Amino acid sequence: MCQTRVLSVSSAKAPFEKTTIERRALRPHDVLIDIQFSGICHSDIHSAFDEWGGGIFPMVPGHEIAGIVAAVGTEVTKFAVGDRVGVGCFVDSCGECEYCLSGEEQYCTKGVVATYNSLDYDGNPTYGGYSQQIVVTEGFVVRIPDSLELNVASPLLCAGITTYSPLKHWNAGPGKKVAIVGMGGLGHLAIQYAHALGAEVTVLSRSIGKKEEALSFGADHYFATSDPATFKTLANQFDLILNTVSANLDVDAYLSLLRIDGTLVNVGAPAEPDKYQVFSLIMGRRSIAGSLVGGIRETQEMLDFSAEHGIAPKIEVIRADQVDEAYQRVLRSDVRYRFVIDVSTL
Amino acid sequence: MCQTRVLSVSSAKAPFEKTTIERRALRPHDVLIDIQFSGICHSDIHSAFDEWGGGIFPMVPGHEIAGIVAAVGTEVTKFAVGDRVGVGCFVDSCGECEYCLSGEEQYCTKGVVATYNSLDYDGNPTYGGYSQQIVVTEGFVVRIPDSLELNVASPLLCAGITTYSPLKHWNAGPGKKVAIVGMGGLGHLAIQYAHALGAEVTVLSRSIGKKEEALSFGADHYFATSDPATFKTLANQFDLILNTVSANLDVDAYLSLLRIDGTLVNVGAPAEPDKYQVFSLIMGRRSIAGSLVGGIRETQEMLDFSAEHGIAPKIEVIRADQVDEAYQRVLRSDVRYRFVIDVSTL
Repeated sequence: MCQTRVLSVSSAKAPFEKTTIERRALRPHDVLIDIQFSGICHSDIHSAFDEWGGGIFPMVPGHEIAGIVAAVGTEVTKFAVGDRVGVGCFVDSCGECEYCLSGEEQYCTKGVVATYNSLDYDGNPTYGGYSQQIVVTEGFVVRIPDSLELNVASPLLCAGITTYSPLKHWNAGPGKKVAIVGMGGLGHLAIQYAHALGAEVTVLSRSIGKKEEALSFGADHYFATSDPATFKTLANQFDLILNTVSANLDVDAYLSLLRIDGTLVNVGAPAEPDKYQVFSLIMGRRSIAGSLVGGIRETQEMLDFSAEHGIAPKIEVIRADQVDEAYQRVLRSDVRYRFVIDVSTL
Repeated sequence: MCQTRVLSVSSAKAPFEKTTIERRALRPHDVLIDIQFSGICHSDIHSAFDEWGGGIFPMVPGHEIAGIVAAVGTEVTKFAVGDRVGVGCFVDSCGECEYCLSGEEQYCTKGVVATYNSLDYDGNPTYGGYSQQIVVTEGFVVRIPDSLELNVASPLLCAGITTYSPLKHWNAGPGKKVAIVGMGGLGHLAIQYAHALGAEVTVLSRSIGKKEEALSFGADHYFATSDPATFKTLANQFDLILNTVSANLDVDAYLSLLRIDGTLVNVGAPAEPDKYQVFSLIMGRRSIAGSLVGGIRETQEMLDFSAEHGIAPKIEVIRADQVDEAYQRVLRSDVRYRFVIDVSTL
């Protein structure tokens, strides 16, 4: 076992404090990672504030982890000391169910072990990436391509795969019209992926304020949803709408923008239920769907695709003592577009 | 033009009365049909009661039409006098849009002309199947196989295609577990189609009362939704749930019965919106969808499939003067499973 410095909260909504925890001794297939950067995801805030219930405290959030391999277990074959690696939203799964076997571990029937705020299969709580070191079994570690800086790579481990996976699953590509709802941490990556995959990309954001930046990310069109004319202009246009906003939507209004057989995919979940008229689905054989991150194989594919196409989040690197403030800024949407903690400041 | 006897309502919720209307003179591609049977669909009631608004009165409902060709226009090639034919929910479409060209006229971008309570492209109101004759362009007439009695064929033109089409679209077949929610006019046909397509079929109905009959239609399993244990027993089981009930559902409860990538398809629409937690979709990449009848080509395929597999609705044939009473019985769910009007009694 080793001691590692972490940022933890002792209870829901408590301020972060610097402390230490123990990481387990390396098992044969384990990799010890010196974390360099850890992204801040909105779900970290939901968890640290215990807004979804069931929080395990003290809690060390963080599931957008980028670092360097510091040691490997005796049977590790995939990684060596010095490798540039990442860890995302989960650190173990049963390995035996049909979903694990097909590389979609996020849907493991036994339930994945989340990177933090979860219990490992041995019963111990998991602690995440706001930490100087982490121990993870090699099957849940991915390789960060050399051309991706570790700080920009870290948000890809959650925000990147969360948007890349549904775009691939619902066939965003040449000849397809894709709308991205919301232009925050997820949305600004979704624009880049949809564009690189060859789709015609429209951004739907509340105000017109982010238009120039959206176009610079590869959007072909940009419309403000605060303008009611937008919903008339764009009626029946899209094959796919990827909703990256966690607030409740006027679902029927967005469904009206879909072509026949189009799909509205949600990757963020509001606390209150969404509502829709069944007619909005029936009249165009439309669908509402959801998608949860992506499997390990696809996460590696997403990193390689990002490197190949020069896709990267816009980030603001912060010190460990700025995390409480950063949370408040995320809640005010005052970040373009993702905070990343420089773990060396811990 | 010719006069034909009809059952019509003069205003919303008025009783039916026997009267006459004019059918247009045959155009080159028109077929004149002597209607023998006309099914009663729940949507006839919504329309005659003007519950969806925009009703055109006087109204002659009916879009489950079975009869015999009585005359054909000069350029008709598909049908001859004496042919056994049917007409379903629509009688014209633009013929030029991508959906018409792909045989999915129900999604015509110009808007299909519904069989009744609609305006034809020439501006005249359409009158439906509670009538002794109808004139329809040949492209919207289908052939009823000899082995199907006309009275049992008539409900297939709406209830049949409404259930057959989504089962085909979402790949109900060998190796797939399909649940049918509700065992009324639509549900009892859906069971038969899903079974004939090779799926493992589970019926979810409010009470246990229809179990024996469900099994006789080909269901493999039957569960009462009034028993809370049902939702635990069947968690994560189904690839596809076809909801044939028009009332509001506990959507989250039904979504919990779906496997990863499973779909809940609605073919009936309640007046009030449905609600769902986005998490119910995200956690299993599940979808909620809707489906609207089916195109003409698929309607013919459904009739041929029904004949080949001996699929037929259970019907109660009524006289024209029993329609008001039949509507009340439909509203009380007091029919097993579909009323069909013997048009000769008009």
